[in-house]
Amino acid sequence: MNNGVNVAVFGATGAVGAEMVKVLEERNFAVNNLRLLASRGGRSMKWRGGDVPVEAVTLASFEGIDAALFAVEGDVSREWAPLAVRSGAVVIDNSSAFRMDPDVPLVVPEINEEDMVTHKGIIANPNCSTIIALIALAPIHRAVGIKRLVASTYQAVSGAGKAGLDELEQQTRDYAQGKPLSVSAFQYQIAFNLIPHIDAFGEDDYTKEELKMRNESRKILHAPDLRVSCTCVRVPVARSHSEALTIETERAISPEEAREILKTAPGVKVVDAPLDKKYPMPLDTADQDLIYVGRIRPDQSLDPGKHGLVLWVSGDQIRKGAATNAVQIAEVVIS
Amino acid sequence: MNNGVNVAVFGATGAVGAEMVKVLEERNFAVNNLRLLASRGGRSMKWRGGDVPVEAVTLASFEGIDAALFAVEGDVSREWAPLAVRSGAVVIDNSSAFRMDPDVPLVVPEINEEDMVTHKGIIANPNCSTIIALIALAPIHRAVGIKRLVASTYQAVSGAGKAGLDELEQQTRDYAQGKPLSVSAFQYQIAFNLIPHIDAFGEDDYTKEELKMRNESRKILHAPDLRVSCTCVRVPVARSHSEALTIETERAISPEEAREILKTAPGVKVVDAPLDKKYPMPLDTADQDLIYVGRIRPDQSLDPGKHGLVLWVSGDQIRKGAATNAVQIAEVVIS
Repeated sequence: MNNGVNVAVFGATGAVGAEMVKVLEERNFAVNNLRLLASRGGRSMKWRGGDVPVEAVTLASFEGIDAALFAVEGDVSREWAPLAVRSGAVVIDNSSAFRMDPDVPLVVPEINEEDMVTHKGIIANPNCSTIIALIALAPIHRAVGIKRLVASTYQAVSGAGKAGLDELEQQTRDYAQGKPLSVSAFQYQIAFNLIPHIDAFGEDDYTKEELKMRNESRKILHAPDLRVSCTCVRVPVARSHSEALTIETERAISPEEAREILKTAPGVKVVDAPLDKKYPMPLDTADQDLIYVGRIRPDQSLDPGKHGLVLWVSGDQIRKGAATNAVQIAEVVIS
Repeated sequence: MNNGVNVAVFGATGAVGAEMVKVLEERNFAVNNLRLLASRGGRSMKWRGGDVPVEAVTLASFEGIDAALFAVEGDVSREWAPLAVRSGAVVIDNSSAFRMDPDVPLVVPEINEEDMVTHKGIIANPNCSTIIALIALAPIHRAVGIKRLVASTYQAVSGAGKAGLDELEQQTRDYAQGKPLSVSAFQYQIAFNLIPHIDAFGEDDYTKEELKMRNESRKILHAPDLRVSCTCVRVPVARSHSEALTIETERAISPEEAREILKTAPGVKVVDAPLDKKYPMPLDTADQDLIYVGRIRPDQSLDPGKHGLVLWVSGDQIRKGAATNAVQIAEVVIS
């Protein structure tokens, strides 16, 4: 009975939590016992051909648990993660609660797995748009050094969880039937619209979502001086985020050299044959784990003597942007 | 009978052509006689409470015409514009055929009306995404000089004309009814997707649409050294283009100063109160003529000692991005 670890998924009924369960099964994660937790119990979920009940979280929930995957809001993580750690679990937390805590590693396993060595019970999963950008940028950063990043994101509704997915779906159906559209998950109608407002506004009138791209990228890449400016925009797409990335590099790199580096980079699929109409698109990157990278070209706006590239990336926000990355961290934890 | 000018709209049945007719009427353009032209005649269109037949274009079509608004493909413009000029008409051409011709003024009346003085019969209407960006950027350029622009666009399906609008509508209805989606106006499905491919690929693997932003901006602003890099992306939005613009300026400018300048700039509406959830969105900017500008903030990625801003703009691509700008040019021509 003990040839595996005991795993809890907290927030199992949300979009990311449900995907974590799916990814654990898909990747044949060495689970001995799986415990599914949520604020409220009741329903059950499929697991290896059977049904596992979803339990309401209690102080006893994390007893005997080795790895706890948290897919809950930040304030819930802040309350429950220390309790889970006290019960002996390693917590992999998908919220923003602990990401910038100097005692908490912030990890994309393909990039900075080594940062996990020093963990004190909690390991943070980065923000989805940061993971998707860095899977493409980290190999280039290692090769030629990235000094500056200007990012514009095109973020899917799944970033607001199941409620976001349901709202785009419902608005689409209501529109097609000539009914009035109702709004609750987002600030405004998202069908046929764009909303340049994700998370709350903060420093310099940037949103926290935009500041995460800067702060988390610096921590993950160990590049405290990296200069980042980001515009985050919600788009009427289901589950893959896309991003236009303009980077300035310390040393020269051609698009061909970048393509060669990215072809062997973990987690990346280079899709960059524009004359054959091959470039990353969210419909193609949904429901799989690779970050597609394409439209790689020189930055025509650079000062003479400066170096840089423009890229276009797309990846599934629920999978590599959240659930898969968390499960990958858990794989390192138990290995 | 002669208290007005004779106007032709060529391509009157397309999305831009039909809007030109609407804008001519809305603005009480001093039309004596209106002639509607298309490759094929047949139907008729509403004009001042009556019906005007759409005629198939012939060599006689432009006789007696003072101003001819062209909303046709580039190759059609290239064939017919010189013939219309020979008939004595001034052609205002919405295609890309003549935009970079040194003998043809490329005009946004709010910015460079004075360039029209030297026209030789043809005046070019700039590309939609260029007009929308420059209405916001030209006043800032005049104040502090723009050296560099990094632009990411979020372009509506109306950029592909009526066929583009119809395709998003049909795909949405088919999706809601569980039918398979068919694709013809765009390279791939556009509903719930993003396509980073507008117009053909060219220099440096940029699309022509992306290169237009650079080339046309330089010509309109009389800024041959302006450095521009652009990523153009089609999004599932009906008729307003939006753009994330990152500019480096020669002299310092604060977001507050930019807002003050833009508040009195022609064609601009500043919508920039993020804490009140006020920012430009394509649903709000459709079917009117102002370019909404917001999310104005410092560029956090600049080198120390450098100056710049990040902005978010949105404007109706069929109106100010095409039809209204053309009618405004015609108003200057006849005045």
